[in-house]
Formats: sequence, structure tokens, C-alpha cells
Amino acid sequence: MLYIVGLGLGDERDITIRGLEAVKTCKKVYIEAYTSLLSFGLSSDGFSRMEKLYGKTITIADREMVEEKADEILTEASKFDVAFLVVGDPFGATTHSDLVVRAKKLSVEVKVIHNASIMNAIGVCGLQLYRYGETVSIPFFTETWRPDSFYEKIQRNKDLGLHTLCLLDIRVKEPSIESLCRGRKCFEPPRFMTINTAIEQLLEVEESLGVSAYCENSRCVGLARLGYEDQMIVAGSMKELLGVDFGAPLHCLVIVGDTHPVEEEMLEFYTIK
Amino acid sequence: MLYIVGLGLGDERDITIRGLEAVKTCKKVYIEAYTSLLSFGLSSDGFSRMEKLYGKTITIADREMVEEKADEILTEASKFDVAFLVVGDPFGATTHSDLVVRAKKLSVEVKVIHNASIMNAIGVCGLQLYRYGETVSIPFFTETWRPDSFYEKIQRNKDLGLHTLCLLDIRVKEPSIESLCRGRKCFEPPRFMTINTAIEQLLEVEESLGVSAYCENSRCVGLARLGYEDQMIVAGSMKELLGVDFGAPLHCLVIVGDTHPVEEEMLEFYTIK
Repeated sequence: MLYIVGLGLGDERDITIRGLEAVKTCKKVYIEAYTSLLSFGLSSDGFSRMEKLYGKTITIADREMVEEKADEILTEASKFDVAFLVVGDPFGATTHSDLVVRAKKLSVEVKVIHNASIMNAIGVCGLQLYRYGETVSIPFFTETWRPDSFYEKIQRNKDLGLHTLCLLDIRVKEPSIESLCRGRKCFEPPRFMTINTAIEQLLEVEESLGVSAYCENSRCVGLARLGYEDQMIVAGSMKELLGVDFGAPLHCLVIVGDTHPVEEEMLEFYTIK
Repeated sequence: MLYIVGLGLGDERDITIRGLEAVKTCKKVYIEAYTSLLSFGLSSDGFSRMEKLYGKTITIADREMVEEKADEILTEASKFDVAFLVVGDPFGATTHSDLVVRAKKLSVEVKVIHNASIMNAIGVCGLQLYRYGETVSIPFFTETWRPDSFYEKIQRNKDLGLHTLCLLDIRVKEPSIESLCRGRKCFEPPRFMTINTAIEQLLEVEESLGVSAYCENSRCVGLARLGYEDQMIVAGSMKELLGVDFGAPLHCLVIVGDTHPVEEEMLEFYTIK
């Protein structure tokens, strides 16, 4: 059996009782490193707290390992119980459909244990989940790569009066260009897009496309470390949020659409005075 | 302190460790009955298992009580720790913004403990969350009340190639019309819309409006008891799903938009052959 267990958003204590019980029965436990590096891997303290609470040795599976060694993990899961831990929900912002598809093709039984993800916990800012349009991702711009496909989606949501959740880029274990040229793998340090960078990029695209999907006065909500003890939520114009230091990752951003009175009352608590 | 604790979707074991720890410190524990009646209230066995696991006596707070006695609950929370348990996530499909707003106005500290909700767990069917448009609610039609505001939203999502999550009506503790006339409150038995009823209503609206937002051949995914041990997921045309018995509530329905290959591979597992 392969258990795919959502860990939620905060620390090791955000696993569910059902999830913890499943992990405890497993002979082998992996954790996907893509986003989890954030919560656990970056602090070895957090990681060892997790191993202690779960009572298991946990193998960190980076993206490469999940892609290259999926069959190995699935072979194990065909013989004994294996847990694959993921930050958030198994089908949240980062989906693990691929692993599920491979498991099902090999007739390995899969059990999914859900948890909170950014896709529902974002509701905490007071904007109602059913009033969101399509979610967009904002990638890091480079000198030569400045994609703007998110722009059209934000504009459509705005035209419909809907809110837009912007997921901000995470770069973990990216091979450095230099190392690729030399033919051996060296990795760039992890990078997480801040709300400030996201807004700068958004405004740059607005300036070049100029269809007024938003402007520096557009109302937004910036959220940092959602679900953590020290989460931070600030509402204000893009311009105002540019001046806010949101601190450590993960950050995300909501561009506010039309609002209902209850939504306004909630936003009020987070608005820059 | 008021803890608003998400319970997730299945049974009492879907609470997080963090949530359980919070509940254990509380002097008073309420559970909102609106949707929770389903998971716990309808089976007294489930309810007592919950009280046993959490080590607390739990007061069921129906809608009326939450609205009428919110100030009482909040006064308690200003003196000692109170937990308010909600099925799913505190800001999922049924939001508790109202309670949070009232608490903040009274300067009662609020801590939200997130969990899975239908709004992210729906990802389990393989359609990616960021490819969903606005969520719609399908209410029970009556002789005289047949609202169709969902139709336009489904059509817009379809035009954009997005999936639509349809939340189906739940009627708990509705005063019967007869009792209202007599001036004392008697309640109708709880009703939960099935996927079959939802599709019948959807097709009825399509027939009367006729703008081809969908038809009986439109591809859908029906999900029953999402997150439960016996959850059921079936993909097929509206016509095909009409013939499926999905069993006990809760049901929900997804109208499928344009799909990516990985989404197709996942849907394949659930498709009626």
C-alpha cells in the first residue's frame, strides 16, 4: 500500500491523527522535498522533531528522486506499506497525480490522506473561496524569459469580479547554468519569490501590455507563512504592499475582485491603516 | 481564546495533532451542526467516538444557536479557551467569517486550525485545482423557486475551458412550512442533494435556457463521501451518472472543462466502462 499523506501547512503537528496512524504502520517513509524543504529541511531541528513525532526515519525525496526512482518506491509499496509525505494536500497546489497514475498502472493500492493546502487555507484572509477565479502562477523572470500568461487570466477574473490567487515561484535544487555547461550537477541555492518581487513583476507586465487588468492602486492581500504560528496577512494596494517586509517564505498574493460586505469586514482587520 | 478547528472530511481521526492539542486545553467545546450532523450527529456512535478521542464533552451548536448565542460563546472565549469545531476547513465551503468578525470586534483572540475541505480535496479526482473556475451551489428546486444563477457561471467556466465544482444543497433543521404557519417551530428531516437530483435540475435549466452550457453528454465527475473510507468517484456523461447510485451523502459534482494529459490519465481510472 502507498499512503500519500498531506502534512498541512505549518509544522510536524499539522498531520492528522489518521495520517499519523498510517505513517506509523509504514516500513518506509519518504517526504517530498520540493516545498517541504521550506518547512522542515531548512531547519534540521524541524526535521528531527518530525522524525521523533512520527517515530520513523524519513528519507528526503527530491524531485529528481521522485521522477527517477518512482518505480523503486512503487515496487516497495507493492510489498509493504510505504508513506509518501507531502506538504499541504496531496492534490493541492503541487499535485502528485503522476505518482498516483504510475501506482495504479502497477496495481499498487493507493490511499490518500487529505490535509489543508494553500488552495483552501487562503480563505483565512476573509475572501470567500467560491469567489475565486482561475489560480495563476508567477514565475521568476530572467533576462530572457519573461512569460506573462498569468496576465490574461487575472484580467478575466477581474472582468468577472472574481479574486485571483497568485502562487509565487519556488526554485529548489535548480542546476546552475554554469554547472550544466561543465557537465556535472551543481545546484543554485533555493529561491522563493517574495510578494514584493511578484508585485514588481506584475506591474512590469501591466506596463508593457497596458490593458489595465490591474494597477498600482489595485487592492491585494499578501500572505506569508500561511498556517504557521507567525503567519502574516496584510491587505492594501499593490503600491502599499511593495513597502511591506513579509519576512521568511512562503509568500502568496491575492488580487481582490468585487467584495461582499462580510468579506469587507474581514479584510478591514488586515488593511494597512 | 477562541480556537476554530477544522475537522477535515472523514471521521474524528481527521483532526490534526495541533487541533487535538488545542481542543484538549479548552474548557468548552462546540461543534457546528450544519454539515457535521452528517459525519457525526447522524451516527451517535461517531459522536461518542469523537468525545472519547478528544477527551471532552462536546456541545452541538446548530445554526440558530451559532447566530443567536454567538455573543455567549464569545464571552466565554474572552474568559477561557473555547474550541469551535467545524467539518472541513474553517474557511472552506461553509465559512465562519461571521464568527471571526464578531470575535475580533469584541477583541477576543482567534486562532484558526486548518484542515482539508471539499475545496481542495476535490483534487483527488485528478482534475487540477488551478484549472477550476468559480464554484457554484445547486439549491433544491421547489414548486415556485427554481433559481438558475449557477447556469451563467458554469457557462463562463466552460467558455474558458475550466472545470466547475458544484456544491450540492444541504438542508438541515429547516422549519417546516406547516409549523411556520402554526407559529411554532417544527423541523423537516435533513435533506442532502444527490448527484442524480443535481443533474436532473441542471438538465432542466439547460432545457429552459438552452444556451448549451452543457448537455446530457457533457463529461462530469460525481464524488460521494469524499475523504471517507468508502468514498466513491465516478466519471462519465451526465446521462451515465444519472444511472449511478452514489449512496449516502455528501455528494458533489464536477463539470469537466478542457483537460491536460495527466488529468485524462487520472480520470480514466474513474470512468464508467
